[in-house]
Amino acid sequence: MTEYSSLLLENAVNELSKLPGIGKKTALRLALHLLREDKSRTETLSRSLMMLREKIMFCERCHNISDSAVCGICSNLRRDENVVCVVEDMRDVMAIERTASYNGLYHVLGGVISPIESIAPADLYIDHLIQRITQEPIREVILALPATIEGDTTSFYIYRKIKSDSLKITTIAKGVAIGDALEFTDEVTLGRSIQQRTLFDQG
Amino acid sequence: MTEYSSLLLENAVNELSKLPGIGKKTALRLALHLLREDKSRTETLSRSLMMLREKIMFCERCHNISDSAVCGICSNLRRDENVVCVVEDMRDVMAIERTASYNGLYHVLGGVISPIESIAPADLYIDHLIQRITQEPIREVILALPATIEGDTTSFYIYRKIKSDSLKITTIAKGVAIGDALEFTDEVTLGRSIQQRTLFDQG
Repeated sequence: MTEYSSLLLENAVNELSKLPGIGKKTALRLALHLLREDKSRTETLSRSLMMLREKIMFCERCHNISDSAVCGICSNLRRDENVVCVVEDMRDVMAIERTASYNGLYHVLGGVISPIESIAPADLYIDHLIQRITQEPIREVILALPATIEGDTTSFYIYRKIKSDSLKITTIAKGVAIGDALEFTDEVTLGRSIQQRTLFDQG
Repeated sequence: MTEYSSLLLENAVNELSKLPGIGKKTALRLALHLLREDKSRTETLSRSLMMLREKIMFCERCHNISDSAVCGICSNLRRDENVVCVVEDMRDVMAIERTASYNGLYHVLGGVISPIESIAPADLYIDHLIQRITQEPIREVILALPATIEGDTTSFYIYRKIKSDSLKITTIAKGVAIGDALEFTDEVTLGRSIQQRTLFDQG
């Protein structure tokens, strides 16, 4: 006999509690909620998760999450393709888009250089950024990486790789609190930090 | 353009955030977590929810959640079928089972009488309880309903329906929680625990 009187319920609770921040008690509450709701609700939820996991694509140009080969931002002719904002991951794209302070394109690195987590430059889309700079009409690269040691290391690494007289390299203003992730920064601070970006130099 | 750069992601976030206690930010974190994990994890999660919702049964005898027509408690020959504990819902069965203090059967009402939520006696499995008392060798009914106005109303209603000389009707003790200080116990609970004091023994 299981604690839940049902193996079906126990399985659902176990799977739900593997999600981050969801313990057994919360998982049970969620499972019992689904049992009280119409069957179609559970079908819609399950299908939306499966569809997301199976059909999601990453933009060929900027590596942002996308429903098609090229994402909505990269294919939007109203965006300024002279400016590219380099970010760690897609949550940062969302965070910057919410500020409505930026009209350029993005380049999602897929992480930051971290010896501890053994993430090397080759694991990130840095080479592709260099390639984009040679192929696209990019005049400014904004480094919008987290204000952490790993973020700074990655910024310096990219700066050394891409610096040239024809390219303006900026970084978001350090209005972002040291140690904070971009996605948790409030819109006003983050928006201002983009508008008040400064020329990138070694220190 | 959606805030999430992807309709697939937006759908998943919307569906997840319909769950109780899950806001948009948490839903996004869960969806992105699934994207980072192996595809099979999402499949297992979705399947377990679908299976739960489609295959779950409720015990014919006690209305507890079950994987079969009769639940594991009702079909367990070692349980004492002379005692039936009446509870509001299946979570109460789990709570009582975890105490390992009870060896009888259960009867899950599926709610309590509540004029505000328009739950009438006919919406609950009260008639079936009366039927069980006539058909099964039940000698004691324990009313283990919540210590609220609705719970008390339901207890009184059932008591009036089932009382007879041959049936013992009891209710769980209500009083100061084990480990609680008297000064932090609410007045109503403390007052009742004094009125319903029991003989002191060393047990």
